[in-house]
Amino acid sequence: MRLSFFKQPAGITIGEIVAMTGAELKGGAPLDRLIADIASLDRARPSDLTFLDSSILLDALGKSRAGACLMAETFEARAPAGMIVLRVRDPMRAFIAVARHLHPDSLRPSSLFDIAGVADAASVHPSAEIEDDVTIDPGAVIGPRAGIGAGSVIGANAVIGPDVKIGRNCTIGPTASIVHSLIGDGVIIHAGSQIGHDGFRYQPGPRGHTKVPQLGRVIVQDNVEIGVNTTIDRGGSGDTVVGEGTKIDNLVQIGHNCTIGRHCIIVSQCGISGSVTLGDYAVLGGQVGVADHVTIGEGAMVAAKSGVISDVPAGEKWLGYPAMRGREYLRPFAASRKRK
Amino acid sequence: MRLSFFKQPAGITIGEIVAMTGAELKGGAPLDRLIADIASLDRARPSDLTFLDSSILLDALGKSRAGACLMAETFEARAPAGMIVLRVRDPMRAFIAVARHLHPDSLRPSSLFDIAGVADAASVHPSAEIEDDVTIDPGAVIGPRAGIGAGSVIGANAVIGPDVKIGRNCTIGPTASIVHSLIGDGVIIHAGSQIGHDGFRYQPGPRGHTKVPQLGRVIVQDNVEIGVNTTIDRGGSGDTVVGEGTKIDNLVQIGHNCTIGRHCIIVSQCGISGSVTLGDYAVLGGQVGVADHVTIGEGAMVAAKSGVISDVPAGEKWLGYPAMRGREYLRPFAASRKRK
Amino acid sequence: MRLSFFKQPAGITIGEIVAMTGAELKGGAPLDRLIADIASLDRARPSDLTFLDSSILLDALGKSRAGACLMAETFEARAPAGMIVLRVRDPMRAFIAVARHLHPDSLRPSSLFDIAGVADAASVHPSAEIEDDVTIDPGAVIGPRAGIGAGSVIGANAVIGPDVKIGRNCTIGPTASIVHSLIGDGVIIHAGSQIGHDGFRYQPGPRGHTKVPQLGRVIVQDNVEIGVNTTIDRGGSGDTVVGEGTKIDNLVQIGHNCTIGRHCIIVSQCGISGSVTLGDYAVLGGQVGVADHVTIGEGAMVAAKSGVISDVPAGEKWLGYPAMRGREYLRPFAASRKRK
Repeated sequence: MRLSFFKQPAGITIGEIVAMTGAELKGGAPLDRLIADIASLDRARPSDLTFLDSSILLDALGKSRAGACLMAETFEARAPAGMIVLRVRDPMRAFIAVARHLHPDSLRPSSLFDIAGVADAASVHPSAEIEDDVTIDPGAVIGPRAGIGAGSVIGANAVIGPDVKIGRNCTIGPTASIVHSLIGDGVIIHAGSQIGHDGFRYQPGPRGHTKVPQLGRVIVQDNVEIGVNTTIDRGGSGDTVVGEGTKIDNLVQIGHNCTIGRHCIIVSQCGISGSVTLGDYAVLGGQVGVADHVTIGEGAMVAAKSGVISDVPAGEKWLGYPAMRGREYLRPFAASRKRK
Repeated sequence: MRLSFFKQPAGITIGEIVAMTGAELKGGAPLDRLIADIASLDRARPSDLTFLDSSILLDALGKSRAGACLMAETFEARAPAGMIVLRVRDPMRAFIAVARHLHPDSLRPSSLFDIAGVADAASVHPSAEIEDDVTIDPGAVIGPRAGIGAGSVIGANAVIGPDVKIGRNCTIGPTASIVHSLIGDGVIIHAGSQIGHDGFRYQPGPRGHTKVPQLGRVIVQDNVEIGVNTTIDRGGSGDTVVGEGTKIDNLVQIGHNCTIGRHCIIVSQCGISGSVTLGDYAVLGGQVGVADHVTIGEGAMVAAKSGVISDVPAGEKWLGYPAMRGREYLRPFAASRKRK
Repeated sequence: MRLSFFKQPAGITIGEIVAMTGAELKGGAPLDRLIADIASLDRARPSDLTFLDSSILLDALGKSRAGACLMAETFEARAPAGMIVLRVRDPMRAFIAVARHLHPDSLRPSSLFDIAGVADAASVHPSAEIEDDVTIDPGAVIGPRAGIGAGSVIGANAVIGPDVKIGRNCTIGPTASIVHSLIGDGVIIHAGSQIGHDGFRYQPGPRGHTKVPQLGRVIVQDNVEIGVNTTIDRGGSGDTVVGEGTKIDNLVQIGHNCTIGRHCIIVSQCGISGSVTLGDYAVLGGQVGVADHVTIGEGAMVAAKSGVISDVPAGEKWLGYPAMRGREYLRPFAASRKRK
């Protein structure tokens, strides 16, 4: 059975794993032994590397057929005979490092048509500037004066608007559209996401609502990843900015003029209104709503489904609607549960 | 006025309706009388079949111009003179059966270009395996080694990635994209849905978040229907599975490694985190959020907008955030309402 | 630095601004002085018009380099020397009027390929009726018997289904799909929105759920604007209607058979179930959920994240879940805060 749609890895030796992860080898296992792939404890075969990071899984360890296992020293007595034990302080981190090494094609989506260069069925405007080593899949549309940096992949039926600049080594997923935007290097924007379209602002009046021009841009800094079907509106007059290294999940809405810091985590279906500021490393759980002009401080965390209507100080954990500091909000729930 | 974008039905006789629904004919109505179409009580014309399933609608029955009506025997005295009365225990079920018979083209979307076969403007990789009687609309992109089963329709500008298998008699809507997935028979995936893209998982670190390879797949079993702009991420190492006959509405998010049972109902804008399990016939109302690793038991129902953070036993009805068993959670609301 | 992706405006004289806005000119400023563009107080250059509508910004006014400023008379003493002061009762409204005049290309999206007419790479069915002055971008697919009115723009990779009628001066964004729908004049439907697909209705049964034919349409009246990745299902038997001038944000779900009034405002990620009625000028905040068959009266407002499960009278402000009249619902929050 073929488990993965990715390429069969080339394999890695135990010695290479030791060098990569700083693991200490228990006993005299051969450094040139080849590991074919990685897998979880229960799925691993004798040619696979696995890992253990919780005593809850000790039973699974005992039954595992894995050829090698990354684990803390304290568990190694429980490893089945014949399993190579690699002692390491953070087994999951080490395991992920090996996974990334074995599956480089999983680090960002590549052409869905297995091509290099520009597909015949793509529409690239003659004034667009396409650097070397760019892949453009069938059906993609690249507008006038757009720029695509070296090593980038534009997915099938994606649409890049006029004057948009995409940096180097980016992947734009199939059917995504990007307009009025400047995109940095190493950015992944997944399928169906809509970046840079009109913010939602009208002047109310007795005979209806008048559209307010949305003249700004979206700036996406380096190494940002944006999930599928997410929407980020361009600024009204200034810009909407997504800071370096920030990761955004699927179906998220980010309104005009937001400033999202660096290395933030924004989980699926969050709705961020206009002119919101997120400090670096802020984390929003799924389905969080944030009212306009709110500031969420550096490293602050907001629990899933919360509604934030006032500023959240740096480093605090908030939840509920209206969101408040953690402990305070949970009291009413605790009270009502005791009463039964 | 043309009410419907569907084909004018061929019609059905009263005798055929009796045979199809098990209805009992009141009085001596002619079995060869032709019914042209179906309609609601207030819209029906003399050539239409309608139905009545509630005493609230008895006034509408009195005024209806419908030629025939499915209803319980208890209401038949209220039917206008000349209306053919078809006695049946479940009038809505009988009505739906006739509607499905008259409008077979409504049971799944067909080509938006009225074509059969592969459009010239589609991009089908030479290594893709396309069975007989497949329709591929203009702009669709079918990747290398993909397989499309007989009788399936791939909508305009849809994208099917490398090695993806689509079963027989499926419809993939326009602009949907499917990668890293195996799709069963009779599946409908509507427009703009994104199936099989990267799950949202990173290893946090002091210099940013490291992407964790997402090596699994999405498995969609037979007769599943997935609404527009819905997103289902592939598994991290194992698979994300959607069980047979499950129906998923629009704008739903399903995270990596979820196991969704058979015949579940998931209403619009639900957000299901990673590694969640839904038992067969579970029902989630709109905008429900489910935390990761939660199990929702067979036949359990969760009310709209709830946030589920602990396991829900089979057959129970839960609501609120954090979601609890029905009665319990309503108490605080009841209390605050009495107080006013 | 290029701030905007829009065309450099042609400029406007102080005299033209006075005529357009009814502003009163302070002192002897020259009516033929040319204003190049508009900008906020802090960004404006000497050739720009800005505005002030709050005393909070008086410091910014003092430091602003703007050449001219719309403001109330009461603030004019605080304007820097040399700044042209335009006295006006509603400075923001006047500013928006000038912005719309200077940036006509921001009032609706235009071709992303800078073309006029039908792109070679579009697929237009020979039976489609395309009026004069229509632009169809590359990759768009226009189905049989569809009609596109004069002055309309169909974006790259958008899909218009069979028999769909699009009125005049509409813009359909890239990758949007529209089926089973009649669209009025001056309508903007942004990228990735899915209009007219199947409503979510099944007949439950012991061996699974049976799909109920969805035979109706979507009717979108004149001057409606619909954001990106929003979904509006067609009616089951009747129609789903969106009334004139209504504005809908991103990622909104509107179910089958809804009747949305004229000039409503529906903010991002709202979920409106089937058969809901919104009166004219109703306003729903972000992430609101509305249960099926609910009526929300004319001019009523529902706060963000509320869940509406009963009718809301005209003109009232509701919030919470279940949503209630404003004052009432806030009490429990107030109580729990005092207790600490």
